[in-house]
Amino acid sequence: MIVAIDTMGGDNAPFSQIEAGISAIDKLGVEVIFLGDEKTIKSKLKDMQLDSDKISIIHCSENITNDEKPVTAMKRKKNSPFVVGANLVKEKKADAFISSGSTGALLTAGTLIVGRIKGILRPALIVAYPTVKKPMILLDLGANANVKPEYLNQFAFMGSSYSKAIFDTQNPSVGLVNIGTEETKGSTLYQETHKLLKENKKINFYGNVEGRDIPSGVVDVLVCDGFTGNIVLKLTEGVAIGLMKLIKQSLMSSLKSKIGAMLAKDGLKKVKSKFDYEEYGGAMLIGIDGIVVKAHGSSNAKAFYYAINQAKKTYDAKVVDSIKEMAKEFADVKQEVE
Amino acid sequence: MIVAIDTMGGDNAPFSQIEAGISAIDKLGVEVIFLGDEKTIKSKLKDMQLDSDKISIIHCSENITNDEKPVTAMKRKKNSPFVVGANLVKEKKADAFISSGSTGALLTAGTLIVGRIKGILRPALIVAYPTVKKPMILLDLGANANVKPEYLNQFAFMGSSYSKAIFDTQNPSVGLVNIGTEETKGSTLYQETHKLLKENKKINFYGNVEGRDIPSGVVDVLVCDGFTGNIVLKLTEGVAIGLMKLIKQSLMSSLKSKIGAMLAKDGLKKVKSKFDYEEYGGAMLIGIDGIVVKAHGSSNAKAFYYAINQAKKTYDAKVVDSIKEMAKEFADVKQEVE
Repeated sequence: MIVAIDTMGGDNAPFSQIEAGISAIDKLGVEVIFLGDEKTIKSKLKDMQLDSDKISIIHCSENITNDEKPVTAMKRKKNSPFVVGANLVKEKKADAFISSGSTGALLTAGTLIVGRIKGILRPALIVAYPTVKKPMILLDLGANANVKPEYLNQFAFMGSSYSKAIFDTQNPSVGLVNIGTEETKGSTLYQETHKLLKENKKINFYGNVEGRDIPSGVVDVLVCDGFTGNIVLKLTEGVAIGLMKLIKQSLMSSLKSKIGAMLAKDGLKKVKSKFDYEEYGGAMLIGIDGIVVKAHGSSNAKAFYYAINQAKKTYDAKVVDSIKEMAKEFADVKQEVE
Repeated sequence: MIVAIDTMGGDNAPFSQIEAGISAIDKLGVEVIFLGDEKTIKSKLKDMQLDSDKISIIHCSENITNDEKPVTAMKRKKNSPFVVGANLVKEKKADAFISSGSTGALLTAGTLIVGRIKGILRPALIVAYPTVKKPMILLDLGANANVKPEYLNQFAFMGSSYSKAIFDTQNPSVGLVNIGTEETKGSTLYQETHKLLKENKKINFYGNVEGRDIPSGVVDVLVCDGFTGNIVLKLTEGVAIGLMKLIKQSLMSSLKSKIGAMLAKDGLKKVKSKFDYEEYGGAMLIGIDGIVVKAHGSSNAKAFYYAINQAKKTYDAKVVDSIKEMAKEFADVKQEVE
């Protein structure tokens, strides 16, 4: 497997990305192509006492930042890692492209350059969401702010395929985010989606999942529109951070609790690691004809390594092929819905 | 002020509701009317060594549960606390109606019996959401799963009025839930709402607020559609419960951390109380011509008392009047939007 790595995007670029890539060569047995400033990459490899002639590098002279409009930036910046990486995947010169740079640029490059699988109405961003029990597959995280029931129905299938690949889930249960368990609950969009999911024989539909039950991990796959998914993911992170901050403040408020906190430190750390995004990899753009992964913008080497690991698992399990197979049936429905 | 109290709805009915009502007479100086089974109420008052002849009771022979369709149930069950309580408010025989029973029945009774304020497109459910800093006003929580930008624009004003009343906020800042801070982010609905809020001179618009920033309390009032608001509120509760559960498990896993936990107990309790819904009152149906409060279904006497307290503050601050004033301007816009 060949993995193209963007070394220009993210808070800790390029070093974390390079370190993660080197670990992946070593531990996962993949080949890597580093995309970015050749001189910087070579100098970092030299620091790591590695022979840079043996590692593929494609020089990129420019980058696309979060502030730029993805579509126009992509047209102008042909030599950015996004355009180069997506083209490598499209031309099958790489099996995956991974970046911790601009989400918008990655989505655009994935959708427009790598391209949608025929029959798939909209690609979606998918993530392993940490729950009390086990990680749960959540999609869409923001690739589609405006959706139709038919998109969500496909998300359900794609999520199932991905859950099987990543977590070896047998017959994964699929839930629909909603504001009540009854099928008449929610907006028109969610009521109609509920109907479609119920009728969909290709998935194991559990029913609606309310906000309160999301963190308990009652299902294997959780489906919603990109607006809701983005709020769910980020709010979870926000609440966890806020709560941990309050706990810390509170424990530091008296000598007694300070001593208590010291003794309980390891236990509290264990909890933090459960909600730690580092080990869960990144968000994958699913529904396109290739593997494109968005690692967290603040990824360190460990987090970026897990994003590569996730691409590897997706590759090994042939997730793209199984979605292609499913999408064939949708190919004729496509016209009327779009 | 006269408060009508439903003693039939909620997990701890009727005793918590009666105890809370008695405390409110005592501490808040309000008059109460208990709605429910007269015999049960009288017997509870007797247990509390109170003279039941001095306390108003209206006997209700039937109740509406969560499983019933609100509109049809309300038509059939004229002697339920929902219908009786809402009519008392409509006829100005009570200044507020409070229930911890079916949310659907309460919304329906509030909207159809008490009635919308002229010019208000849709009433909304509003709550004080606990954040790291201070409670923040959040609406809508689920009264409207399908919304239009014009509704959200009115929610912003109603939220501001309520924030001023409940928390004495001067010129409260209003945020819009969204998946990015730029005004071009989010669904069409949220992009259009952003524009309206920006142009609305009656509010102090802060801009978009992402999921991650919701728990930090960056604004005084946070506006969203009822679907999103419901997910935000319940997910926050779910994450907090999940995290506290993990912490407890983790602290019990070794002797060292067990001792630590014992010493840190008070500190941890303080944090729990910060996220404790009991002290924040209930959810209020705002935009109707009266005060109707939904206390949490699992309210104990303390939580129910705070819901009464909230109704009292809303009454004292004349929130309904200030919304009526604002709504006059909207009265002519109403026709075209609905």
